[in-house]
Amino acid sequence: MSTLQAPFRTPDAASSARDVRLAARSGALQSHTSGLASAHVQGNLVILPKSHAADFLRYCQANPKPCPLLGVSEPGDPALPMLGEDIDIRSDLPRYRVWRDGELVDEPGDVRALWREDLVSFVIGCSFTFEHALMAEGIALRHVVQQRNVAMYRTNIATVPAGVFRGPMVCSMRPLRATDAIRAVQITSRFPAVHGAPVHLGDPALIGIRAIAHPDYGDPVDVMPDELPVFWACGVTPQAALAEARLPFAITHAPGAMLVTDLPHHRLACF
Amino acid sequence: MSTLQAPFRTPDAASSARDVRLAARSGALQSHTSGLASAHVQGNLVILPKSHAADFLRYCQANPKPCPLLGVSEPGDPALPMLGEDIDIRSDLPRYRVWRDGELVDEPGDVRALWREDLVSFVIGCSFTFEHALMAEGIALRHVVQQRNVAMYRTNIATVPAGVFRGPMVCSMRPLRATDAIRAVQITSRFPAVHGAPVHLGDPALIGIRAIAHPDYGDPVDVMPDELPVFWACGVTPQAALAEARLPFAITHAPGAMLVTDLPHHRLACF
Repeated sequence: MSTLQAPFRTPDAASSARDVRLAARSGALQSHTSGLASAHVQGNLVILPKSHAADFLRYCQANPKPCPLLGVSEPGDPALPMLGEDIDIRSDLPRYRVWRDGELVDEPGDVRALWREDLVSFVIGCSFTFEHALMAEGIALRHVVQQRNVAMYRTNIATVPAGVFRGPMVCSMRPLRATDAIRAVQITSRFPAVHGAPVHLGDPALIGIRAIAHPDYGDPVDVMPDELPVFWACGVTPQAALAEARLPFAITHAPGAMLVTDLPHHRLACF
Repeated sequence: MSTLQAPFRTPDAASSARDVRLAARSGALQSHTSGLASAHVQGNLVILPKSHAADFLRYCQANPKPCPLLGVSEPGDPALPMLGEDIDIRSDLPRYRVWRDGELVDEPGDVRALWREDLVSFVIGCSFTFEHALMAEGIALRHVVQQRNVAMYRTNIATVPAGVFRGPMVCSMRPLRATDAIRAVQITSRFPAVHGAPVHLGDPALIGIRAIAHPDYGDPVDVMPDELPVFWACGVTPQAALAEARLPFAITHAPGAMLVTDLPHHRLACF
């Protein structure tokens, strides 16, 4: 062991983003990134061959609320300098998913062996940042209190298609009292790079959700009689579009195992 | 008639704010100011003896959402230079209400004969400005389309008392679809000087409103099945507190007969 190397420490909320990435790179961290380096932006990952990257880029551009792009790599380059120091996108997430012809074929801890010169990495904003901002303003989020995944639903809101990418918008739902819902609109409007303002609130049926107690992804949470369900566009939308497109080859993060970037949350606030 | 004086013209949407005030001053305009000099901020008026002015000022300061102060005069001075050129608050509104011991005793066209050296004028922001901003963003307002007064309700939200001034918050209600309601939160958040963001949306019973079809002030409007009722703090709140306080003497504007200021609406946008 080099005398220059810091003694290894299990990453926690106070870790630097780079320490979390290095722990993932070394194989010491193989699980969720939720709560790690908690002052920093985390992102969803999609890696595609160049042949589909242009369509996917157009899809994200046309659907910025569910698919807010934080960074896109050069083809073949595993670095993402706009998101962090010495990122190696092939190893710096704790776990990946490998898709062939639309089927999940593997969940490796790194994808170095699969790397190709034509691969383009897309990092997409996730709701952790706006949840951080909501909680910092004193708004309690039930799924966080109850230590569950947020509830997510396929809606009848269509995304704008681009090439092979299309499908319904997936929305996350957080139950809030009206005053908190109004405040949450204000707070999340400041963060367009992580889904921005809600897309709906109130009656779930108006966006095609029949059973609020049965989310399509994540865990159900109760909506109290004095609360409104508030719906935000969700980063699962591009993942669902990707699955639907049944591409010959794609790599994504595994659920909850995100890229932890060097960006502090407040860097994404637009005012 | 002086050759310097412009020929008199009935004020309309394109008039200058000063022309509207001069028409009121001359007695030619005795009715509503709604839609006149429509690019300009209008305000509610309360005139009180100095003996109650300090409490009323504290009441407004403690309740900025229902009582946003646009301007306060020096005692005895009928001018409000922060709100417009050569305003004479005693004559520049089309109609006034005079209150003695809490009772409405007169509705004169000017109050020059009642003026005293101890009177302080308060001009309070009104929703015309945020309605202008909402409509400019393409959000249709049903009461405007139907040419009715906005529906207003006494709620169970208590204002912060100050001296003799206290009472429930009065809210105006506009029915909006969820996407417009979210947009309306964003737009009206920019205008804290004219009530700002909504105070409630969704279930009226949660703020003590039992019958949405029966407003306490103004006219009822329908709330469609795909709409939420959205509630804003309303300038009728201080008027109700004033009536409750049963002061020996007070002057207010008559309903709909507001002070038209020189301020363009956009001057009140805080970002």
